Amino acid sequence: MRMDNLSFGADGTDPSANTNGISLINGKRKPPVDPEKSVAVLGTGDYGRAIARRLVNNGYTVFVGSRDPNRNKIKQMVRDTGASLTTQESAIASCDVVIVAVGRDYYDYLPLQSLRAKILIDVSNNTEPRRGPHYRSNAEYLQGLVQDAKVVKGFNVLSAYALENGGLQGSKEVFLAGDHSDAKTRVSEMVRMMGFHPVDWGSLQAARDIEDVPLRLMPSWKRPVLVVFGVFLFLWFLAFMSFQICYNIKNGDWSKMWKHIALQNFNRVLGITSLWILSFCYLPGLLAAYIQLWRGTKYSRFPKFLDDWLKMRKQLGLLMLGMASMHGCMSVAFVTPKTTEWVYEAPRQILAQVVVDANTTTTDTITIYDSELNWRGEIFLACGAISLCLLVVLGITSLPSVTATLSWREFTFVQSKLGWVALVVAALHDIFLAWNFMIDYWSCFQTFPIGPQYALYPVFIAIVMKIPLLLPPVDNYLQKIRRGYERKSEYEVSKSQVA
Amino acid sequence: MRMDNLSFGADGTDPSANTNGISLINGKRKPPVDPEKSVAVLGTGDYGRAIARRLVNNGYTVFVGSRDPNRNKIKQMVRDTGASLTTQESAIASCDVVIVAVGRDYYDYLPLQSLRAKILIDVSNNTEPRRGPHYRSNAEYLQGLVQDAKVVKGFNVLSAYALENGGLQGSKEVFLAGDHSDAKTRVSEMVRMMGFHPVDWGSLQAARDIEDVPLRLMPSWKRPVLVVFGVFLFLWFLAFMSFQICYNIKNGDWSKMWKHIALQNFNRVLGITSLWILSFCYLPGLLAAYIQLWRGTKYSRFPKFLDDWLKMRKQLGLLMLGMASMHGCMSVAFVTPKTTEWVYEAPRQILAQVVVDANTTTTDTITIYDSELNWRGEIFLACGAISLCLLVVLGITSLPSVTATLSWREFTFVQSKLGWVALVVAALHDIFLAWNFMIDYWSCFQTFPIGPQYALYPVFIAIVMKIPLLLPPVDNYLQKIRRGYERKSEYEVSKSQVA
Amino acid sequence: MRMDNLSFGADGTDPSANTNGISLINGKRKPPVDPEKSVAVLGTGDYGRAIARRLVNNGYTVFVGSRDPNRNKIKQMVRDTGASLTTQESAIASCDVVIVAVGRDYYDYLPLQSLRAKILIDVSNNTEPRRGPHYRSNAEYLQGLVQDAKVVKGFNVLSAYALENGGLQGSKEVFLAGDHSDAKTRVSEMVRMMGFHPVDWGSLQAARDIEDVPLRLMPSWKRPVLVVFGVFLFLWFLAFMSFQICYNIKNGDWSKMWKHIALQNFNRVLGITSLWILSFCYLPGLLAAYIQLWRGTKYSRFPKFLDDWLKMRKQLGLLMLGMASMHGCMSVAFVTPKTTEWVYEAPRQILAQVVVDANTTTTDTITIYDSELNWRGEIFLACGAISLCLLVVLGITSLPSVTATLSWREFTFVQSKLGWVALVVAALHDIFLAWNFMIDYWSCFQTFPIGPQYALYPVFIAIVMKIPLLLPPVDNYLQKIRRGYERKSEYEVSKSQVA
Repeated sequence: MRMDNLSFGADGTDPSANTNGISLINGKRKPPVDPEKSVAVLGTGDYGRAIARRLVNNGYTVFVGSRDPNRNKIKQMVRDTGASLTTQESAIASCDVVIVAVGRDYYDYLPLQSLRAKILIDVSNNTEPRRGPHYRSNAEYLQGLVQDAKVVKGFNVLSAYALENGGLQGSKEVFLAGDHSDAKTRVSEMVRMMGFHPVDWGSLQAARDIEDVPLRLMPSWKRPVLVVFGVFLFLWFLAFMSFQICYNIKNGDWSKMWKHIALQNFNRVLGITSLWILSFCYLPGLLAAYIQLWRGTKYSRFPKFLDDWLKMRKQLGLLMLGMASMHGCMSVAFVTPKTTEWVYEAPRQILAQVVVDANTTTTDTITIYDSELNWRGEIFLACGAISLCLLVVLGITSLPSVTATLSWREFTFVQSKLGWVALVVAALHDIFLAWNFMIDYWSCFQTFPIGPQYALYPVFIAIVMKIPLLLPPVDNYLQKIRRGYERKSEYEVSKSQVA
Repeated sequence: MRMDNLSFGADGTDPSANTNGISLINGKRKPPVDPEKSVAVLGTGDYGRAIARRLVNNGYTVFVGSRDPNRNKIKQMVRDTGASLTTQESAIASCDVVIVAVGRDYYDYLPLQSLRAKILIDVSNNTEPRRGPHYRSNAEYLQGLVQDAKVVKGFNVLSAYALENGGLQGSKEVFLAGDHSDAKTRVSEMVRMMGFHPVDWGSLQAARDIEDVPLRLMPSWKRPVLVVFGVFLFLWFLAFMSFQICYNIKNGDWSKMWKHIALQNFNRVLGITSLWILSFCYLPGLLAAYIQLWRGTKYSRFPKFLDDWLKMRKQLGLLMLGMASMHGCMSVAFVTPKTTEWVYEAPRQILAQVVVDANTTTTDTITIYDSELNWRGEIFLACGAISLCLLVVLGITSLPSVTATLSWREFTFVQSKLGWVALVVAALHDIFLAWNFMIDYWSCFQTFPIGPQYALYPVFIAIVMKIPLLLPPVDNYLQKIRRGYERKSEYEVSKSQVA
Repeated sequence: MRMDNLSFGADGTDPSANTNGISLINGKRKPPVDPEKSVAVLGTGDYGRAIARRLVNNGYTVFVGSRDPNRNKIKQMVRDTGASLTTQESAIASCDVVIVAVGRDYYDYLPLQSLRAKILIDVSNNTEPRRGPHYRSNAEYLQGLVQDAKVVKGFNVLSAYALENGGLQGSKEVFLAGDHSDAKTRVSEMVRMMGFHPVDWGSLQAARDIEDVPLRLMPSWKRPVLVVFGVFLFLWFLAFMSFQICYNIKNGDWSKMWKHIALQNFNRVLGITSLWILSFCYLPGLLAAYIQLWRGTKYSRFPKFLDDWLKMRKQLGLLMLGMASMHGCMSVAFVTPKTTEWVYEAPRQILAQVVVDANTTTTDTITIYDSELNWRGEIFLACGAISLCLLVVLGITSLPSVTATLSWREFTFVQSKLGWVALVVAALHDIFLAWNFMIDYWSCFQTFPIGPQYALYPVFIAIVMKIPLLLPPVDNYLQKIRRGYERKSEYEVSKSQVA
């Protein structure tokens, strides 16, 4: 798809000046180019060529402007894109829309005069987030250089690879920012024609955020992952000391030392961690409520740790859901009448003649396990399944497209009401599993609680904190504060104003 | 972030009149305010302050208009937002965009004359849905009061909490309605700058629906939840009578009366209910087809119950999926050679010396179960897994973002074709499980069918109704009707016109 | 809801000419019609009536234009919609917006002169995709006929059924295309008022794609489904020969020939196929890397098979996830100490007195299985659960609404890094399951590898291909090429230009 720019006459430029490119290769004349569908690209680097190629493939006439359009190397590279290679000035003169595909360091060397009154698309990225009180994004810097131009930030969230492959797999969204809505509309249309989805992020100042997007690697997940990992390690260490070391010291049998590391111990810690983290999703909200009650206002800042904690809840919840699912998945295959004998009907022991080899038998005691759950086992398993299903529902309502269909009231109902039910049912799951061991201690260290007990500690704290808030007078007062009521008297206000 | 409104000169108002607020607190002069980025907020309540704070944090200059801007209490409350407090008239005069954050009852007391030619954003909500033939939304009422203004409905779906926290967890969508598209564009940009997603719902009349959104609590789920719950209760009662009461009467053994309530009985009823509800997703479509065939047209209203039923199918399907998943989850842990002996290889009974205590043994018969599934068991389990996986695929295509990528033909293919396969496979799952009991009766009441039998009744009805519709002549005729053909003759038409 | 068009006076047409319809049926006068809210529909077919009915229900005044508005049949059909029936010319004259609801073959017979300067909405569909170098969409053809009109493509993705029911279940998106953005804005507003979501696909040329949407039946899934099905059949055949035929020849026992077909064999093949297909998601990327390293550039086309393969990865991955989930679901219910004895503690054989009937016993050897996993079993199961959970995370990030929230870097991190971990862990799952059989052969054919061995072949190839790419010099060089570097020398460039 080569374009013949000989016949191009938009903007009154002399197209005959524009023959230093590869425009005559086909020797065919094309009909006059639609000015709405012609774009200049400044810069012959990888990104410039990728965007030029994509534009050409979507029916645009593209003029790639180079500072050195006669170099063979550049000619060859640009030819493959189907765009016309020319000088920067000539490319700019031919089009209303100019894509600036050079680094910020080179902005000063652009033909700034000729860029006036054009729509400039800044596609640049940074290699690291740069911030400070006086920081300006690349796009704002460009706008500062050419104040008469209409700068639009865009495309930087797409890699050259995504441009070449139509974003086949990743997000197809292109974030735009700019102070000129007519320019943004024009660029939006171009984005759509190229097969992507334009998303307007507002004024050019938003370019600061847009330029950080490609550098982002799940910033909101880092802290929650660390918290969950830390809790898991701590609980794993406790379980390792209790169920492996301590148990084997007591039994004097070290042969099984490593045997249950991979699954039994791991699975147990997954379960306990899930219960802790699920409580951790509700504890900060309770703390916040008490602080609001104490201070008598919602207009005071929470301590920073609480603020961070409140913002982590969604991620904590999703990580918890992953662990709870893995726990469920492992448990159904692994919980057997032998491993968790106490939730099944009592096994029976028989004296049997065990076959040693073809000719020898020896009399030994053999345990015949019963695969029927007892009543505690039935409740234990039912609670686990119900709790997991409720948590999956919570997970589904966290999917962006589902959240978007829920009103604030509906979202709160699911995340709060259903979540509390899941928490209580999960605690019952733990209680009915370990019914017989709720007053047990470490086998070698008789004052230390075991897993199923400390699994319940945060749930217990959460429930104890929740109950007073359910009392109608407390609840009403909290609702009043949350609607904006402040307890502080006029007198105190005046005093704080003086101070 | 305090704004100095001394230097504000937009709209030709005299800024020196505007010094009754807190604008000089910092004693610093700021550069002239951008008229595009200044907003007036009328009302100093919780919501008005929340929206003012959010605007200030996003770079807007905000003038909060109060009827009593000199009260200390109000001064103190507004100061925290970073907005300037002033009189209502003065705030309005300073800005093109005015957010009306007072209740509908106070609209009449606003300085209506000065609101003319402004863009008014109505953020009000109702406490209950008010409807009637002459009902007008708050936004329409405001538009009626100030006919020269451009009223835009918006923000009401965000709570003050969401505004303060950027909708961190819930939906970020802000629904807009208005008769003036330039005003809507301006407000859309503001919504975006504040970090939310504007969604245009059309003309101002749509405000009626938008004002109901925050009051909504899953209205489309109420009826399906009731139906599913009713069906579950009914089937649970039947199972309770059959498997608990009747079985124990027959056996004369009441010791196991409550033992299997939590899981075995619950799980069985979950399975049966899932099969019923899955059939209920396909029955209304079949009924509708027969009604269309009978009437010879698609242009006649279905009976109301059928209309409601057709609209419930998605919710019924999702509730069914939840129950089927829980059933699968419980079953894999619970189905053992002892509980469902008949789908496993035959157990063997041995005469064994059972250990009673260290010194005593007694001879007793012990059953040694075989954990290998027989061929029926293999088919039963495979069908269950296949059916559940197909239903999960149906569930995934019901996610809004996945549905949006499917054409009508693709969606129908998945929901109808795959759904029917899932229904038939689920029925086979039931049949192969209960192969030995398909002609059995209640143990104490010899004419009553048992669970695995009545589980199949609605499936059976659905399949019997479906088969004739698969015959090519019937299918073609139905397709013809659905493309708009009407059997009614010209004669009948004329007659009905006369009548 | 009938409209009285007597009082309609927009566009200077004489409304009294417009009394041939059903407009006087109610005998009531309505207030003047808002020209913004009146639409003409040309065509009285099923689709025209459906769109007319929907418009009327959403507050529009609709004029259905027919070539024969006096036929009783047509009168009766249109009356039900609540629209006014009139001649084509009269309907067009009354409105700015005209919906053309007749087939492409009838476009030439429309009153083309009167359509000039109108906004025309082309709602037509094709019955099969028509393509060729000179193909024009229906909408482009219509624009060609009436060059002064503003043609907008739209609504064709909604069936008449969807229009009548508000797209209750399927996608609510309406794709628009057109060269006139004011016309598109007007139609967008109309789409929103009708309860659907307008999505702008760009210029009128995009109508070619939009007209293909309703004919689409998951085109991107056809090839991957075939590939997966083919691989499954091939592996099933191998497993059938090995585990059924060969095993039974060796044992001389044909009684179990069909017994394990439904589940054991099926489940085994599901597992092996999942591992193969998961490898197939990573192999094409590795091949592409080697081709780029070899050619020293990323600007050369891959062979077509590789291009197709790269584009299939998402679908392959999702199909694999479905199979892996089914494999997990079946396995947890099915893996028992008897069926996979080697991952459990050693069973014991006893000589027991087996009860034959009430009076007879016979001495027989009975195997008492141990339901405790051995250490290999624990690792096997843990790896399976971890791998499946990671694959589910990959699946979730493939949901459109989740993908859209991820930056390119985040998406690649999840799909590539996490995916490779899942692949390696899934391979370990296979290895630890079949630890004892990794050097085994088919029982009757001593040179042929068994399932758990050939399951690993593609994983092995992938890992062997991956390792060199992880070496820093190779990795750096590949990154350089992917940033646009080309190894080709200037000399070679010139030569190829000459050639």
